[in-house]
Amino acid sequence: MKRAEVTEKILTAKRMKELSWEEIAKKIGGASKIIVTAACMGQMKMTKEQATKAGKLFGLGKEEVLLLQEVPYRGSLPQIPPTDPLIYRFYELVQVYGTTWKELIQEEFGDGIMSAIDFDMTMERQPDQKGDRVKIAMSGKFLGYKSY
Amino acid sequence: MKRAEVTEKILTAKRMKELSWEEIAKKIGGASKIIVTAACMGQMKMTKEQATKAGKLFGLGKEEVLLLQEVPYRGSLPQIPPTDPLIYRFYELVQVYGTTWKELIQEEFGDGIMSAIDFDMTMERQPDQKGDRVKIAMSGKFLGYKSY
Amino acid sequence: MKRAEVTEKILTAKRMKELSWEEIAKKIGGASKIIVTAACMGQMKMTKEQATKAGKLFGLGKEEVLLLQEVPYRGSLPQIPPTDPLIYRFYELVQVYGTTWKELIQEEFGDGIMSAIDFDMTMERQPDQKGDRVKIAMSGKFLGYKSY
Amino acid sequence: MKRAEVTEKILTAKRMKELSWEEIAKKIGGASKIIVTAACMGQMKMTKEQATKAGKLFGLGKEEVLLLQEVPYRGSLPQIPPTDPLIYRFYELVQVYGTTWKELIQEEFGDGIMSAIDFDMTMERQPDQKGDRVKIAMSGKFLGYKSY
Amino acid sequence: MKRAEVTEKILTAKRMKELSWEEIAKKIGGASKIIVTAACMGQMKMTKEQATKAGKLFGLGKEEVLLLQEVPYRGSLPQIPPTDPLIYRFYELVQVYGTTWKELIQEEFGDGIMSAIDFDMTMERQPDQKGDRVKIAMSGKFLGYKSY
Amino acid sequence: MKRAEVTEKILTAKRMKELSWEEIAKKIGGASKIIVTAACMGQMKMTKEQATKAGKLFGLGKEEVLLLQEVPYRGSLPQIPPTDPLIYRFYELVQVYGTTWKELIQEEFGDGIMSAIDFDMTMERQPDQKGDRVKIAMSGKFLGYKSY
Amino acid sequence: MKRAEVTEKILTAKRMKELSWEEIAKKIGGASKIIVTAACMGQMKMTKEQATKAGKLFGLGKEEVLLLQEVPYRGSLPQIPPTDPLIYRFYELVQVYGTTWKELIQEEFGDGIMSAIDFDMTMERQPDQKGDRVKIAMSGKFLGYKSY
Amino acid sequence: MKRAEVTEKILTAKRMKELSWEEIAKKIGGASKIIVTAACMGQMKMTKEQATKAGKLFGLGKEEVLLLQEVPYRGSLPQIPPTDPLIYRFYELVQVYGTTWKELIQEEFGDGIMSAIDFDMTMERQPDQKGDRVKIAMSGKFLGYKSY
Amino acid sequence: MKRAEVTEKILTAKRMKELSWEEIAKKIGGASKIIVTAACMGQMKMTKEQATKAGKLFGLGKEEVLLLQEVPYRGSLPQIPPTDPLIYRFYELVQVYGTTWKELIQEEFGDGIMSAIDFDMTMERQPDQKGDRVKIAMSGKFLGYKSY
Amino acid sequence: MKRAEVTEKILTAKRMKELSWEEIAKKIGGASKIIVTAACMGQMKMTKEQATKAGKLFGLGKEEVLLLQEVPYRGSLPQIPPTDPLIYRFYELVQVYGTTWKELIQEEFGDGIMSAIDFDMTMERQPDQKGDRVKIAMSGKFLGYKSY
Repeated sequence: MKRAEVTEKILTAKRMKELSWEEIAKKIGGASKIIVTAACMGQMKMTKEQATKAGKLFGLGKEEVLLLQEVPYRGSLPQIPPTDPLIYRFYELVQVYGTTWKELIQEEFGDGIMSAIDFDMTMERQPDQKGDRVKIAMSGKFLGYKSY
Repeated sequence: MKRAEVTEKILTAKRMKELSWEEIAKKIGGASKIIVTAACMGQMKMTKEQATKAGKLFGLGKEEVLLLQEVPYRGSLPQIPPTDPLIYRFYELVQVYGTTWKELIQEEFGDGIMSAIDFDMTMERQPDQKGDRVKIAMSGKFLGYKSY
Repeated sequence: MKRAEVTEKILTAKRMKELSWEEIAKKIGGASKIIVTAACMGQMKMTKEQATKAGKLFGLGKEEVLLLQEVPYRGSLPQIPPTDPLIYRFYELVQVYGTTWKELIQEEFGDGIMSAIDFDMTMERQPDQKGDRVKIAMSGKFLGYKSY
Repeated sequence: MKRAEVTEKILTAKRMKELSWEEIAKKIGGASKIIVTAACMGQMKMTKEQATKAGKLFGLGKEEVLLLQEVPYRGSLPQIPPTDPLIYRFYELVQVYGTTWKELIQEEFGDGIMSAIDFDMTMERQPDQKGDRVKIAMSGKFLGYKSY
Repeated sequence: MKRAEVTEKILTAKRMKELSWEEIAKKIGGASKIIVTAACMGQMKMTKEQATKAGKLFGLGKEEVLLLQEVPYRGSLPQIPPTDPLIYRFYELVQVYGTTWKELIQEEFGDGIMSAIDFDMTMERQPDQKGDRVKIAMSGKFLGYKSY
Repeated sequence: MKRAEVTEKILTAKRMKELSWEEIAKKIGGASKIIVTAACMGQMKMTKEQATKAGKLFGLGKEEVLLLQEVPYRGSLPQIPPTDPLIYRFYELVQVYGTTWKELIQEEFGDGIMSAIDFDMTMERQPDQKGDRVKIAMSGKFLGYKSY
Repeated sequence: MKRAEVTEKILTAKRMKELSWEEIAKKIGGASKIIVTAACMGQMKMTKEQATKAGKLFGLGKEEVLLLQEVPYRGSLPQIPPTDPLIYRFYELVQVYGTTWKELIQEEFGDGIMSAIDFDMTMERQPDQKGDRVKIAMSGKFLGYKSY
Repeated sequence: MKRAEVTEKILTAKRMKELSWEEIAKKIGGASKIIVTAACMGQMKMTKEQATKAGKLFGLGKEEVLLLQEVPYRGSLPQIPPTDPLIYRFYELVQVYGTTWKELIQEEFGDGIMSAIDFDMTMERQPDQKGDRVKIAMSGKFLGYKSY
Repeated sequence: MKRAEVTEKILTAKRMKELSWEEIAKKIGGASKIIVTAACMGQMKMTKEQATKAGKLFGLGKEEVLLLQEVPYRGSLPQIPPTDPLIYRFYELVQVYGTTWKELIQEEFGDGIMSAIDFDMTMERQPDQKGDRVKIAMSGKFLGYKSY
Repeated sequence: MKRAEVTEKILTAKRMKELSWEEIAKKIGGASKIIVTAACMGQMKMTKEQATKAGKLFGLGKEEVLLLQEVPYRGSLPQIPPTDPLIYRFYELVQVYGTTWKELIQEEFGDGIMSAIDFDMTMERQPDQKGDRVKIAMSGKFLGYKSY
């Protein structure tokens, strides 16, 4: 059994029960909506408690519940560059602003990176008269190159 | 003359005069530090006023000042996936969280995308006892698929 | 269940019932023929009403009808560049006229893009003595780069 | 001497003389603004008369004027998929609507393609209260597969 | 059901009945041996009459017979460059002679292409003392770039 | 010095002297127009006699004349798939008819290939009321797989 | 049924019966061990006699025996560059010595290639005090470029 | 200065002095003709003595002579798959016989590889009535996977 | 049956019996934990004894136990560059330090490579106040290029 | 001026002065030999003091000395997979052992990665009767996925 099959099974259950990610995140708990969604999409692991709740919610079997507790082989996109327009726009931001991020982060912090592991993210709707906006806030620990 | 040559000339001037992007953004003005840096890196256009100031600051010729006012052919990375670790981490976020962003934005807003054109971004240092963090806030207008 | 399986099932039903897209679009309604066809091909979502009609027309099950109402992961081509000659010709237009479109749209509108989201399209037969022509008219909202 | 060098020289002259494509097309004449721009961008050939006028307008040498009269090796994009957002949106249309175009053109015309050679195109600004739109109309001769 | 499955079924029937393409083309009729073979390989459509005969010859079901009458998504090779030596040699001809064909066709006909749609082809054995030769004759309509 | 530089120099001379390939082939002689053109395009070697004539015709130096007598590193296309429409059409023929050629050549000759080395080709204009046609005839020795 | 399925079935039979290629080649006969192995791996065709013996040895059905007599679509590697270290080393030889082979073969034979079709190969163990060696001898007919 | 520039300079000298690799190998000495040619092509290093002789023979400067003594960054082909027909045939052998080599070497020697480092090669002309043959003999030490 | 199916079956058994690699390595024995894990992941072969124990531990059938004793087609990653962040970091080390390794190994040892076949590796936890560290020690035999 | 040009200049100076990396590291100081070499190869930055010493040692100009103090755009390989055999072997280790590293690191530490930023490495010669070995020890901080 592969993690992708569990993801597909979860999506079927979500669809048939007409659940939103909002509701799923509340029922599984233990982490933010983003992390719970990512775990259901096969990109994060769940704790034993979360996986047990997910198993009940989605009607999963024993191996599936165990699989949700394993670290997945990450990577959620079928191709790169992503063909889906919503996801592509994020990829475009990397293309256009990549070198700018590098210049500014390094000017502020020195040589290193923004961690994508010790990393936090929120997403919210920002009401705006000219059309509501998607607001994403990311915060990752700065990790400086060490010289031993 | 190509835009990449202007970028290289700007980087040489910045290096020799030991200017920071902070100082450059203040001297050129008219936009945030991110946008001014992106323009210097060849990803955004400058207004006539900005370009004239940039010309003085960096010692550019007439064609170079005009070129800064043209819309560039965007795309700042020599290869994809980016080999530079700092930029790669952003690419990794797209790989890992891409489908999660899609699920959550669409659950909240319906079918559409977060604009990468009508788009705003800030970057700041977030002090933290366990190590300071890079904080990036993005805000893009939601654009819904229209059915005519 | 995956969206591609619904597309395959729809194509089988269309074939066995010898339906044209013209007829399908009329029976499903609620949008232009292009959008209905794109939805059947797995590239657009349907409204609840459209999906219910599609379910009856094609003999789909409950999950399939629900799936048609979800935003699909877009991207309709098995490879890029497309190997099919009809689709390749459009790709060729992008290759040959891409930079010309960029120059002319930006000269007319300034820095920005033609939206592929707030976008409309028609396709029609244009009778012509030397051989009829395919006429495609596209109209997309201009979105200008904002500087916050 | 390569055609790309003539394009670069033309772009420098256009920049220094602050000419628009509108003006250039008028001065060179003999074809639509799209075709003249495409020829300057190295994608179409010019007639002897057009090339001579272009030579005067841009200050080109003898070989450059001759080169403008040769059929170029077509293909205007430095990479595929295009990294520039304006051009990428057209590529995205091919990705999303490619199979739909195939279905509908073939339903209407039978087995064949829309020519990208016997092809015409116009581009215009479409005023709209919610924001002006880019309108592109394409018309290509239908070419049916022949069975000899 | 996909066209590739029909191709596989046809190849199984051909194998089990020990039919040659020569015989198949005679029994299906209505086009040259090349076109009939290409249709069986999933690259051309059949007429209703041809498909009905093919259905009988190969023992196909109703949907399969209908599928043979649809325009296929063309492209017959699993990878490019083709790994099979016989097919690779044709690809090599494009690599080596591509620019030569361009020069000579354009010198003779002006700016345009040789159509791959209004196109005819024959293949025959050419006896030769030093070893027989494969002789392929292609004829495609010249299509000139139009300037509207 | 590289062969591509000799090709560029030859193309400049051809352009400035307004020579056709027809005329060049006559002046250099010793092979068909296709082979002479291919040699000028950097895909075939010339004999000493041909290279000497080419040297005079195009005003080449000693090393350039010697280089024309060396076997080139073959491959004439800057990218694959070729972006130029004329050359792409040949590539499309390989995509669409590749497996058909394989089936028919092997049915006629057994296991083997059509040589692209012991290979001959002609190209001519075929007058036709519905528009003239490009006619290409290829003939390559059949080489059967040997089993030692 | 596809040739790859026959290969998989043969490998299962070989494994369960604990046969070596040495034994298989003796039982099937009619060609060298290399060619018989290549045929079992789906890269060469068998004669009727060989295929019948293979059918008995491996317990194959009628279609499978017929399939072994067809020319396969050649190409035995799942990716290029090959990820398997043993096969990669051969690929590395092409990378490192490719241009050297070209120089030396052409110096000795003139313009042409070493045939990979009229080609023979042996492989043997070469005892050596410092560790035994793999010895591979290849011999391919030289084919000179013909100028018609 | 890069190794590729030294290679180009050596090839120019070889051309102008009309030297063969045979003669070059004799004059430089210290290794087989294959190794000397590979070193001149930028794939092997020379000893001090060899490089000094090469410097005299080709008229190289001090840095060039030193560069010939450095281990090069290996890899001699501008693209993969190689577009040159002579080199492609070797690549084709890897494609077709790769898995066969793996099976047979491992049956004979166990788990491991044929070294491409502790490796020897000869190339010779094999006279043959049906056309002379290129004979290549390779011998590489077998290296078995160790389990510590 | 393919090796990947055995790997999947082993992973299911490991999951259901909640075994660690530590425990598995002890039960199978005969090699280090790294090698046993790699063998279970389909990258190394097992001895007869190891495979028999693995068969009992994981409940494998006869063919599966035999398959574990065959040399696998190596290559454990579904794509390159690897999308999984843990594995990508190793790939990044090759990108960043690759040329440095080349310089230093060659300075110390001369022209050659570090064997990836006669190769040993250990992995351990290194306690550290600022956060524990992963310590990996690799040791591969140096193999020098031989000149025969 | 680009960092790659400084690298080339440093390599020329190293070559002409016949310096070893050992000596260079001692003269520049302030970090291990690996880090100093990596900085010279354009993959790490130098401190002001190191860069000044490097400037004197290699005869660099003011901008070059400043450039050495900037964080480079990392990525040292001209292609991936690397064509150079020494570097390829490391890439092969990632291919073969990648999933094993993932399993074992995650079993020991939980979900996270080995940092390639807070990372240390040593390389040394390990004398061995059967041939000396290259010993590389890596130590990277474990970074666990955080759930905010």
